[in-house]
Amino acid sequence: MKVFGVDPGSRRTGYGCIDTDGSRHHLVTCGAIATSLQSTFPEKLLTIYQGLGRLLAEHRPDCVAVENVFHATNVRSALLLGHARGVALLAAVEGRYPLFEYTPAEIKRAVVGYGRAEKHQVGEMVRLLLGLAEAPQPHDAADALAVAICHVHSAGGVPRQVAEALESGRRTAKSWREYRP
Amino acid sequence: MKVFGVDPGSRRTGYGCIDTDGSRHHLVTCGAIATSLQSTFPEKLLTIYQGLGRLLAEHRPDCVAVENVFHATNVRSALLLGHARGVALLAAVEGRYPLFEYTPAEIKRAVVGYGRAEKHQVGEMVRLLLGLAEAPQPHDAADALAVAICHVHSAGGVPRQVAEALESGRRTAKSWREYRP
Repeated sequence: MKVFGVDPGSRRTGYGCIDTDGSRHHLVTCGAIATSLQSTFPEKLLTIYQGLGRLLAEHRPDCVAVENVFHATNVRSALLLGHARGVALLAAVEGRYPLFEYTPAEIKRAVVGYGRAEKHQVGEMVRLLLGLAEAPQPHDAADALAVAICHVHSAGGVPRQVAEALESGRRTAKSWREYRP
Repeated sequence: MKVFGVDPGSRRTGYGCIDTDGSRHHLVTCGAIATSLQSTFPEKLLTIYQGLGRLLAEHRPDCVAVENVFHATNVRSALLLGHARGVALLAAVEGRYPLFEYTPAEIKRAVVGYGRAEKHQVGEMVRLLLGLAEAPQPHDAADALAVAICHVHSAGGVPRQVAEALESGRRTAKSWREYRP
């Protein structure tokens, strides 16, 4: 099963596609659609929408998982994020991909093991779960992969290997907490 | 010149197209794209996007004017509105229509004469300025026409007739204020 994760943002929209049998995940592709500082805001939305549309058409995932949000620093950042999420959801629904949404807390819980994990912990767990030498960069790409992994775990895959990784992830996360500056 | 106004919303997106020589405005079309209560949120976004795309392709306006927002009741409503605005802006920019944005206060100032006008005052002034027997319904349609009219006034049309209407609008608005329950 191919799962395509999206972490929408008006400056950078992270994406990550994994191939999984439910317990073993392989990285297909990941990255971020960066919008130009010179672009108008509507042009940025077009970049995100067309970029995601092209990636989805290229990789033809079985489903798309998008980070959901109910909170934002303020109304202005909620409005900006809403625009980016809107065109991201549109790209998925227009392509008739089954669409799933997960909150940041659900994603962190599914990937790191607890809902208030830090960004670098998410990146490190994504690295472990995908068997990569380094955590995916930029962090938007890692976040998007985390959404995809979250979908697999939530869809009730066969997460034994994953559960082990999660356990080690919990420990790692704990040690990170202990050693945080 | 044909100006197409949009008042985005996730439940109803108002639209209104006017034909104008700068001083006289004629109604081309107006209405609201209503989304089904049974639809998922992404499906609603698709309805708005496809509906606007079809209308723009049908009327081929010279430009599109969209209501801008910087405020919302709360983060949640800002997020919802942001999604709807995102796909509305996308429909306009994808069709390569010159795109203009006006705040609610700018629209009310341009149409009613002051920035804190009430919804029914906007509807009544739209009726007067377009020479209609009744104010356009639903109010989302009137609001969208107001955005279009705002663009014409802001673009420095020849608003003598309009200025007179505005004057009478101010008087009307005042009397409304006086007689408000």
